[in-house]
Amino acid sequence: MGPIKAFRLALIQLAVGEDKLENVKEALRFIKRAKENGSHVIALPECFNSPYGTKFFPKYAEQIPSGQTSIALSEAAEENQVYLVAGSIPEKDGEKLYNTCTIWNPSGELVTKHQKVHLFDIDIPGGIRFKESETLTAGKKLTIFNTDICKIGIGICYDLRFDEMARLYRKEGCDLLLYPGAFNMTTGPLHWELLQRARAVDNQVFVASVAPAQDKNADYVSWGHSQVVDPWGKVIAKTEFDEAIVYADIDLKVVDDVRQQIPVFGQRRTDLYDTVRRD
Amino acid sequence: MGPIKAFRLALIQLAVGEDKLENVKEALRFIKRAKENGSHVIALPECFNSPYGTKFFPKYAEQIPSGQTSIALSEAAEENQVYLVAGSIPEKDGEKLYNTCTIWNPSGELVTKHQKVHLFDIDIPGGIRFKESETLTAGKKLTIFNTDICKIGIGICYDLRFDEMARLYRKEGCDLLLYPGAFNMTTGPLHWELLQRARAVDNQVFVASVAPAQDKNADYVSWGHSQVVDPWGKVIAKTEFDEAIVYADIDLKVVDDVRQQIPVFGQRRTDLYDTVRRD
Repeated sequence: MGPIKAFRLALIQLAVGEDKLENVKEALRFIKRAKENGSHVIALPECFNSPYGTKFFPKYAEQIPSGQTSIALSEAAEENQVYLVAGSIPEKDGEKLYNTCTIWNPSGELVTKHQKVHLFDIDIPGGIRFKESETLTAGKKLTIFNTDICKIGIGICYDLRFDEMARLYRKEGCDLLLYPGAFNMTTGPLHWELLQRARAVDNQVFVASVAPAQDKNADYVSWGHSQVVDPWGKVIAKTEFDEAIVYADIDLKVVDDVRQQIPVFGQRRTDLYDTVRRD
Repeated sequence: MGPIKAFRLALIQLAVGEDKLENVKEALRFIKRAKENGSHVIALPECFNSPYGTKFFPKYAEQIPSGQTSIALSEAAEENQVYLVAGSIPEKDGEKLYNTCTIWNPSGELVTKHQKVHLFDIDIPGGIRFKESETLTAGKKLTIFNTDICKIGIGICYDLRFDEMARLYRKEGCDLLLYPGAFNMTTGPLHWELLQRARAVDNQVFVASVAPAQDKNADYVSWGHSQVVDPWGKVIAKTEFDEAIVYADIDLKVVDDVRQQIPVFGQRRTDLYDTVRRD
């Protein structure tokens, strides 16, 4: 027998309200349930302890890893013996605020964190206007971490639109890209599924996204639709708007198959072009 | 009034048979009809004067621009006063064969040619096996040309899978990417539309593809489905399997709109990554 090449991924599409402590407690309850259902990697949505909105970020922000949310996440990862990709929270670091994903291993250690590198600043007349950069600072690095089974690349929401980031994750050995994100009622139906399927097929990786559940009364209405796409571009698990856990068994043999049958990665004409790191 | 920012594009989904002369004549008839219907840029499918298959390429290959197909195309472009993106033909250049798209301006001049840079070598068990490199040589350059209205980037079929090529076309000012191509009954339903929508949204350009009509008795059965995708990723014109002309009015204001409303190109973190030319 070779090494283990499969694991169960759980995406927790959490209903997020204005009570931070209650948001965190609800997350912990779902983590426990996902573990009971055999999950090895568990992911939370973007902004899972705070409503999403620039006016909320300063009030809800915490230091990492000394804040109360970090402490609760560390305990949950260790207690449940899982890798925990903890969506994101508003992070306070000195005078600056970030939209930050913390990643915890089964020993409860902070493996790494991803500070959203592409801030969400868009303006679609009659659709959505939003400017994260009013309060947030953009991160300065790409984020890959190792589990005992495969490498995972992390992006937060708007990061999904930037294909070169995903290409570098593939070049550096990732088999799964995980995007906590909260698209909205304009960009969700337009591009949420398309972008994930595009990243999956272009890079021949699994792509998973995890959003907060929809709250029609919130300032910012989440599209929900947490899902998992396989390396062929097929959506293998998804939900719609309500609170739910989406499970998918990530079989890395599928990654090997598609890469062997349509060997585009080795056929890239790197004598003509390439995607490069600048950092 | 500013400069003209719109034009009609015609994609000729040609029924290609084994009689080369008849294939070319049929193309000329369709070019004339597309012009009568107001088209300014007219595109033919991949391998429009020859059946698609490595065994046919040596027999059907011609020199460019001295071969009979080139001569007919030059006359057709001038007679109809159109830009002609002439799909592809097997090209003989010395001892080598290429899969080559010729591009003609309304004066009947050969503007440039694109030799397919990514050869189609794949092997999907139970699906499709094909190895263009058995007889063809890969091109050595990317191909952009100017019309009087916008810049167009060219790829042939399998080139569509290589997103870095499309990114460079966008970086160098293209508003439309045009792919003559012939996906098949395995890869067509899997990826034809997805890849085009991905290129369109990631680069905020129009993307058009033009395939031969389906011939169920051919060695290689084309997926057909010539189509045009707008910069939002929406399919704005398409057909299915049979011979047809697909028309789309390419309004470059749509390009400006999407780039303004979701300004991802300027938000790319080129301090962290970039796509670069190597040639």
